[in-house]
Amino acid sequence: MTTADLRNQAASLAERVRAGNPRALARVISMIENADASIRSVMKDLTPVPARARVIGLTGAPGAGKSTVTGALIKAFRQAGVRVAVLAVDPSSPFSGGALLGDRVRMADHATDSGTYIRSMASRGQLGGLAAATPQAVRALEAAGFGVVLLETVGVGQAEVEVASAADSTVVLVVPGMGDDIQAAKAGVLEIADVLVVNKADRPDVQPTVRDLRNMVALSDADWKPPIVTTIGTTGEGIDELVRQLDRHWTWLGETGERDRRRMARASDEVTALALGAARERLAVPGELAARVAAGELAPHDAAAELLASAGL
Amino acid sequence: MTTADLRNQAASLAERVRAGNPRALARVISMIENADASIRSVMKDLTPVPARARVIGLTGAPGAGKSTVTGALIKAFRQAGVRVAVLAVDPSSPFSGGALLGDRVRMADHATDSGTYIRSMASRGQLGGLAAATPQAVRALEAAGFGVVLLETVGVGQAEVEVASAADSTVVLVVPGMGDDIQAAKAGVLEIADVLVVNKADRPDVQPTVRDLRNMVALSDADWKPPIVTTIGTTGEGIDELVRQLDRHWTWLGETGERDRRRMARASDEVTALALGAARERLAVPGELAARVAAGELAPHDAAAELLASAGL
Repeated sequence: MTTADLRNQAASLAERVRAGNPRALARVISMIENADASIRSVMKDLTPVPARARVIGLTGAPGAGKSTVTGALIKAFRQAGVRVAVLAVDPSSPFSGGALLGDRVRMADHATDSGTYIRSMASRGQLGGLAAATPQAVRALEAAGFGVVLLETVGVGQAEVEVASAADSTVVLVVPGMGDDIQAAKAGVLEIADVLVVNKADRPDVQPTVRDLRNMVALSDADWKPPIVTTIGTTGEGIDELVRQLDRHWTWLGETGERDRRRMARASDEVTALALGAARERLAVPGELAARVAAGELAPHDAAAELLASAGL
Repeated sequence: MTTADLRNQAASLAERVRAGNPRALARVISMIENADASIRSVMKDLTPVPARARVIGLTGAPGAGKSTVTGALIKAFRQAGVRVAVLAVDPSSPFSGGALLGDRVRMADHATDSGTYIRSMASRGQLGGLAAATPQAVRALEAAGFGVVLLETVGVGQAEVEVASAADSTVVLVVPGMGDDIQAAKAGVLEIADVLVVNKADRPDVQPTVRDLRNMVALSDADWKPPIVTTIGTTGEGIDELVRQLDRHWTWLGETGERDRRRMARASDEVTALALGAARERLAVPGELAARVAAGELAPHDAAAELLASAGL
C-alpha cells in the first residue's frame, strides 16, 4: 500500500471508532497496546475528541472483588443512561498476555448492550509502556463517545500508581480482615485512594477493617478525605452509596480546580513519555561503546553523554 | 563549597570505596538510590573497576525462603575465600522505604566479617529507577573489590525481570506445593531462571513440585536447561549442589560467549536508560501544550513532536 492508502485506511478506522464500532475500537486499542507504527496517525484522526470522559480507577489486591464491583458500577451507570467502557489493565506481569479471566464472564452479561464496552490490556514491551498506552486507550474510548471509563487494575504497587494516575477518581477496594495486608499497603492506599471500599461486607470483621481505615484517613492532612463505603459486589449492596461518593468527589474535583490540575499533569506526563519514546528510537548504543562499559573501562554516565552528543541531542 | 571542593570530596569518597570502607560504600549506594546530582562524578572516579563481579540473582515469591538461602550462599562463598556483597532490591512498592526485614537479622550473622556486605535498596522516584540504579550499585561493589554480588528480589513480575537482567545467573526459588502459583508463574519463571531451587524441601509435596518443574523445563527449547536443586535453606542442605550448579552455569556462560553477550546487552540498556534520564531533564512540557492535550484538542503524539523540536532534539 502507498502512504496515501495507509493514511486513508487510518482515517476510515478513526471514522468507525467515532461511530462507536466495537471492532474498530478493539483494533485501535490493540494498535496502542502493541505501539503500532501507524498509531500516531490514528490518534491524530481521533483528535479533537468530542468530550473528555470521566475516568474512574478501581484497584485492589487479587480477590478483593474488583470484577463484581465493576459489574455493579456498569449497571448503575447504564441505568443513569451513561455509556460505560471498562479498561482492565494488568501491570503485574508481562507474561499474562492480557487476559483477565473475569472479562468473558462480565462480557456475557453486557454483550447485547452497545452502551457498554469491556476490554483488557496488558503490558507488551518495556515497563512504562502501560503508562503511555492507558491514556491513549482512554482517548480512543472518548472518541467513541463513552462518558465513563472504568480503569481496573490489580494491586497498589508502583505500576498501579502510574495507571491510577490516569484516573480522575480512584477507588481502592479492600476486603474485611486483611489485617497485615492493609498495614503493608497503608501508605500506598492513602497515596492514591479517593474513595475506599470495604467489599464483601457480608464477611466477619467488617467493623474492625472500617475502623482501621477510618483511623488511617484521620491521620491524613489532605484536602480531600477519602470516604469509606461498605459494599457487597455480588448483590449490589452499597453500590448506590459508592456512586454517590464518586459523584461527590467529581463535584469536589470540579469546584476546587483539582480536576483541571490533574488532567494537565496527566497530559504533561503523557507527552513526556511519548517524547522520550521517540527519543529512545534515535538512541542506538554502538557496540564499541557498550563493550567499553561492559568491561568496566568507561563510566556509564559518560557513555550516555557520548551517546546523546552523537545523536545530536 | 566550590566545584573543585566537590570534585575533591567525590574523589576521596571513591578512594574510600576502593579501600573497601563500608560507610563510604553505603553513602555511594544511597546517592545512587536517590539519583544524587554528584553521582556521575563519583561513578567516573570509580572507573575503571578492577574486575567485574560475578552477579547472581535470587528471586521468588514472598515466603520462598530467599533470605535463608542467601545466608547459606554467603557462607559457602566466604568459605571459598570470596568476598560477597548482597543487594536486596525491593521493586514491588515505592512505599516500602527500602527496608527488607531480613536484613538486620542476616547482618548480625556477618557483622564482624569485612568480606561480607549486605544492603537493601528501594525504588525512589519513577518506575525504571531501579533498572538504572541496580547496575550502578553493582559497579560500586565491584570497585570495592567484591567478587560475588548476590542480587535478591521479590517475585517474578516485570520489575523483577528487569532487576534479574542485571545478573549473570538467576536463581528462582519456589516452595513445595505452590501448585497454582507455579502454574501462574510458569512462563515468567522459565523466562528468567538459570537454576531452579525447590526450597523448604523438608515439607511434603517436594516430589510433585520437582516433577512439575521438570516437565516445564523439558518443554523449553533453550540451549541452557535450568537444573532443579532441592534445598533446606535453614540447615544448608543442598546448598553445595546449588553452588555446583551455579558454577556449571558460570562455565557455560563463559564457554558459549553468552556471558559477554549478556553483559554487552546489560551495558547497552544501562547507557540507554541514563541517556533517556538526561534527555528527560531537558524536556519540560509547556503549560499551554499540556492544556491543549488535556482539552482533547491536540493529539499527544503531535504535542510530543512539538516538544522534541522545541528542545532541539
